[in-house]
Amino acid sequence: QSSVTMFGVVDASVTRLSSDSANVTGLASGEQSSSRLGFRGIEDLGGGLKAGFWLEGSLAVDNGGTSYRFDRRSTISLLGGFGEVRLGRDKLASYLNVESFDPFGDIGVGGNGLNNMLGGAAAAEGTAEGSHPKRSSNIIAYISPNIGGLQGQLQYSFGERPSNQPNNDRGNIVSARVSYQASPLEVALGYAQLDAGTAATAVTYKATNIGASYDFGVVKPMVLIATERGAGRGVNAYTLGASAPLGQAGEFRVGYTRFNTQNVDDADSSKLALGYFHKLSKRTVVYGMLARVSNDNNASRGFAVSSSSLTAPLIAAGDSATGYSVGVRHTF
Amino acid sequence: QSSVTMFGVVDASVTRLSSDSANVTGLASGEQSSSRLGFRGIEDLGGGLKAGFWLEGSLAVDNGGTSYRFDRRSTISLLGGFGEVRLGRDKLASYLNVESFDPFGDIGVGGNGLNNMLGGAAAAEGTAEGSHPKRSSNIIAYISPNIGGLQGQLQYSFGERPSNQPNNDRGNIVSARVSYQASPLEVALGYAQLDAGTAATAVTYKATNIGASYDFGVVKPMVLIATERGAGRGVNAYTLGASAPLGQAGEFRVGYTRFNTQNVDDADSSKLALGYFHKLSKRTVVYGMLARVSNDNNASRGFAVSSSSLTAPLIAAGDSATGYSVGVRHTF
Amino acid sequence: QSSVTMFGVVDASVTRLSSDSANVTGLASGEQSSSRLGFRGIEDLGGGLKAGFWLEGSLAVDNGGTSYRFDRRSTISLLGGFGEVRLGRDKLASYLNVESFDPFGDIGVGGNGLNNMLGGAAAAEGTAEGSHPKRSSNIIAYISPNIGGLQGQLQYSFGERPSNQPNNDRGNIVSARVSYQASPLEVALGYAQLDAGTAATAVTYKATNIGASYDFGVVKPMVLIATERGAGRGVNAYTLGASAPLGQAGEFRVGYTRFNTQNVDDADSSKLALGYFHKLSKRTVVYGMLARVSNDNNASRGFAVSSSSLTAPLIAAGDSATGYSVGVRHTF
Repeated sequence: QSSVTMFGVVDASVTRLSSDSANVTGLASGEQSSSRLGFRGIEDLGGGLKAGFWLEGSLAVDNGGTSYRFDRRSTISLLGGFGEVRLGRDKLASYLNVESFDPFGDIGVGGNGLNNMLGGAAAAEGTAEGSHPKRSSNIIAYISPNIGGLQGQLQYSFGERPSNQPNNDRGNIVSARVSYQASPLEVALGYAQLDAGTAATAVTYKATNIGASYDFGVVKPMVLIATERGAGRGVNAYTLGASAPLGQAGEFRVGYTRFNTQNVDDADSSKLALGYFHKLSKRTVVYGMLARVSNDNNASRGFAVSSSSLTAPLIAAGDSATGYSVGVRHTF
Repeated sequence: QSSVTMFGVVDASVTRLSSDSANVTGLASGEQSSSRLGFRGIEDLGGGLKAGFWLEGSLAVDNGGTSYRFDRRSTISLLGGFGEVRLGRDKLASYLNVESFDPFGDIGVGGNGLNNMLGGAAAAEGTAEGSHPKRSSNIIAYISPNIGGLQGQLQYSFGERPSNQPNNDRGNIVSARVSYQASPLEVALGYAQLDAGTAATAVTYKATNIGASYDFGVVKPMVLIATERGAGRGVNAYTLGASAPLGQAGEFRVGYTRFNTQNVDDADSSKLALGYFHKLSKRTVVYGMLARVSNDNNASRGFAVSSSSLTAPLIAAGDSATGYSVGVRHTF
Repeated sequence: QSSVTMFGVVDASVTRLSSDSANVTGLASGEQSSSRLGFRGIEDLGGGLKAGFWLEGSLAVDNGGTSYRFDRRSTISLLGGFGEVRLGRDKLASYLNVESFDPFGDIGVGGNGLNNMLGGAAAAEGTAEGSHPKRSSNIIAYISPNIGGLQGQLQYSFGERPSNQPNNDRGNIVSARVSYQASPLEVALGYAQLDAGTAATAVTYKATNIGASYDFGVVKPMVLIATERGAGRGVNAYTLGASAPLGQAGEFRVGYTRFNTQNVDDADSSKLALGYFHKLSKRTVVYGMLARVSNDNNASRGFAVSSSSLTAPLIAAGDSATGYSVGVRHTF
C-alpha cells in the first residue's frame, strides 16, 4: 500500500576495542549510524490536519539480532498548525541535544556518551532505562510549530505504577527542549526530570544540557555541556567538536569530551575521537574512526558499541581504552 | 515487489483504570482496534484458483513491544469455487462471534471479554492459550464459499503431542462456525471443543456462542450469548449492545455484559460500556470510552487492556472497576 | 520507497513423524523451502560499483514464531568488478554445497542433514552454532567474480572473545568454497575450520565436502560427499540424488544418504527420501514427501523439521524413523 514507507540503515564495520589488559576484534553494527528498519506513513486529513505513524526497530547487522521490535520509535501523531501531539515510545526531548551536538552523533567508538552518565537502569534505581536514557516508553508529547526558527517540545512519560504502591511516582519522566535554528547557527537547551528510587526512598534525577553549533562552511564547530544530578551523585561533562568537508565526498570529524564526576574524587575521564567519512553516494558511506579514553584512577569509562555480540573488554579503574572502526553504512 | 501488501493499525490512548483500592494511569495500545503490522498477498493461479498468504503481528505502540512476531495470524491458503483451505495460526472460528457481536469488538476497556471465561492457559490446564482462546496455532481449516449469505468454517488445531504420552490429545481443538448475513441482518453460531487436562486426567472444554445484529440505519442493536463448560466449571454470559451514527463523522456505542458463574455462588459480574468515536478520515479516528464492572462478592472480573506495559491494578473479589480511554487510531 | 524489495516464502504442511515407539502429527512450516520474510536492496554507485543490503528472517507459519529477527541473513555488501565484500550474518560458504547437491535442499523430512554431523552448539563445545553450522554471525567475506564459470568465496567469522580469555580463539571460523558451473555441469568444493573447545582444552572442527550435478534434461543426478572431524570424533557421509521433470508442472525427486560414524562402532545410518512437487504457478507449489531413516544399534538419527512447535518423537538408538509431509509453498 502506498500509505507505508519502509526505511532503514545498515551499517557494519570491523571494530577493535582495547583496554590496558585485553583487546577484542570483531564485527560491529551501527558505528556511524545505528542500524535500523522502519515503517512510517502520513495521512492528510484536510484543513491543515495530518495523522502520522512511525515504527522503527533496531537492527544488529553483525548477528541478525535476537528479537526485532520497535524499540527505537513507535508513535502515532496528530499534526497541524498548532504543532504536533505525539503518543508512544520516542527519544527523550532532552536527549536530542546529546546526538545533535556530538560530531559522531553519540554512536560508535567516537560517540560522546553524555547520556545515562549516572548509570543505566540498574545503577539508576527505579528508572526503566537509566538516569538520563536515550528513549522512554509511554510518552505523551507536544511539539510546537517552528516559529522563526524557535521550537519547543514537552514530554510526559507515564511510569504506570498503581496508586497504592509506595513511591508510585517511580518511572515518571518530564522532559523538555527549546531550540533555535537559523542557519548557520543552531542552539538548544534540554532538561529532564526522572522520578526514581525504591519503595522506601524516593530519588529524583535531573539532567540538563545546552548545545550550540555554527556552520562556517569550511568547518562546523560545536559544543555541548551536560550535567546529571541525583541520589547524591553528579557528573558534569562537555564535548567540543567539529566537522569539516574534505573535497567533494569526504568529511573529517573530531570530538573531545571531558567527564567530571562530582561526588567521587579522582574519577574524571576524557575522550578524543577522530573520524573520516567518504561518500560513495548520498546513501552509502565508507568510514574509519578511532578514539581514546583516558580515565582517572577511580574511573572506568569506555565505549558503547552498538552491536548485538561485540562487547568491549573489561576496563578496570584507571585503564585507558582505545577503539578503531572501519566500516560501511548504507541508508534506504 | 507488487506481490506484498503492507497493512496495519496504530492505536494509542491515555487510559485510566481503577479498582476499589487503587488506580493507574498510562498509555495503552489498541483500545479501539488492536495495534498491528502485517504483510499479505494473493496470487491468481488461473482457472478460478488463488493462493494467498497473511502474516500479521501485534504492535505495542506504548513501548514498542518486546518481540515482533506473527502472533495474530500466519497462514497460507488455497482458494477457489470450493471455498478456502487455510493452514497456520489464526483466530478460532468460534471466537469470531465474540468480536463481531460486541459493539467494542472485544478490545479495550469497553470490550466484553466473552473468551477464556474459565481462564487463560494456566487456569485451563493442558490447553496452550486458555479455555476458549482468541487464536490457535497449527490449524488446518476449511472455509466454505458464501452461498446466498450462508457460510461455514471448520477448523482442526493439532496439539502435536507424541502418541506415547499419556493423554496425548491435550491441545487438540475442533472449532466451527455457521453464519448467515443478508443485510441488514447478521446471525452466527460458534462452537469449540478443546482437549485439555494433565497426563493423569483428561478434561474437555466446550465453548458455544450465538450472536445476531440488525442494522436499522439509525441504530444497530446486537446480542451475543456465550457459554463455556469444562473441569466441573461453567460460565454463561451475554452482551447486549448497539451502535448508532451521530452526524457525518460520529458514532456512539453502548454495551452491557452479564457473566453468570455456574459452579460458584455469588460470583457473577456485569459490565456497562459507553464510547464515542469521531472519524477524522476513513483511516483516522479519535475516541473516548468508559466502562464500569460490578462484581459479586466472589468475583473479580476487570479489563483486558491491550498494552505491553499498562496493567490494571489488582481487583479484589467484590471490587468494582472503572476504566477510561481517550485516544486515536490510524489504519494503513 | 523503491529502494527496498520485500520477499519471502510461506510453506506449510501436514506432517507425520514416527519412530519405533511413537508418532506425532501436526502442522510444519518450511518442508519444501524454509518459510521466511526479507527486505533487500541494491544501489548503483556508478563506475561499476554497487552497494547492497539483505535482511532475511525465519518464519514459523505453523504458530507465528516466537521472535522475528534476521537470523537467516543480515548483510551489507560492496560489489564491483573485483567481486563482492560482504559483512554480517550469512550462510557458511562450505554449507552451500549441502543444500545445492541435495535434491531436497537440506530441508524438511527429505533433507539430507549433512551439516552439524558431530552435533549442534551443545555437542560441539565452544562453537556458537555447532560443528559445521548452516550459518554464522560476524562474517567478513570476499566473493570472487564469476570467471568462465569458476567462482570462489572466502569467509572469516569473528568469535569475538577478549584476548585475555584462555583459548580465546573459540568461535573463530574460516570457510571457503570453490565452484565451477557450466550448464549442464556443476561441481563445488567446500571447507570449514572452526576453533572450539573449552577454556582448558582447544578443539578444532574441520568440515570438508564436494558435490556435483549434471542436468541431462530428463533427469538431473547429483552427488554430495561430506566429512566432519574434531574432538576425536568423525562422520563421513554421502548423498546420491536426482530430480526429474514429470510433464509440464511436475517434478519427482529422490535422495539416498548414508552416514558413517568413524569413532563409534555400529553407529551408521541411512536415509531414503521420495518427493513429488506440482507447480500451480511459478510461485506456488503443492507437494508430498516421504522419508525413512534406518539406524544401526548405536545410532539415533532422525529428521530436522523446520517448525516452531512440531518436534519429532524420541528416536531411541537403533530405531527406524519415518516422515511424511503434504503441503503447499508460496513465494513472494
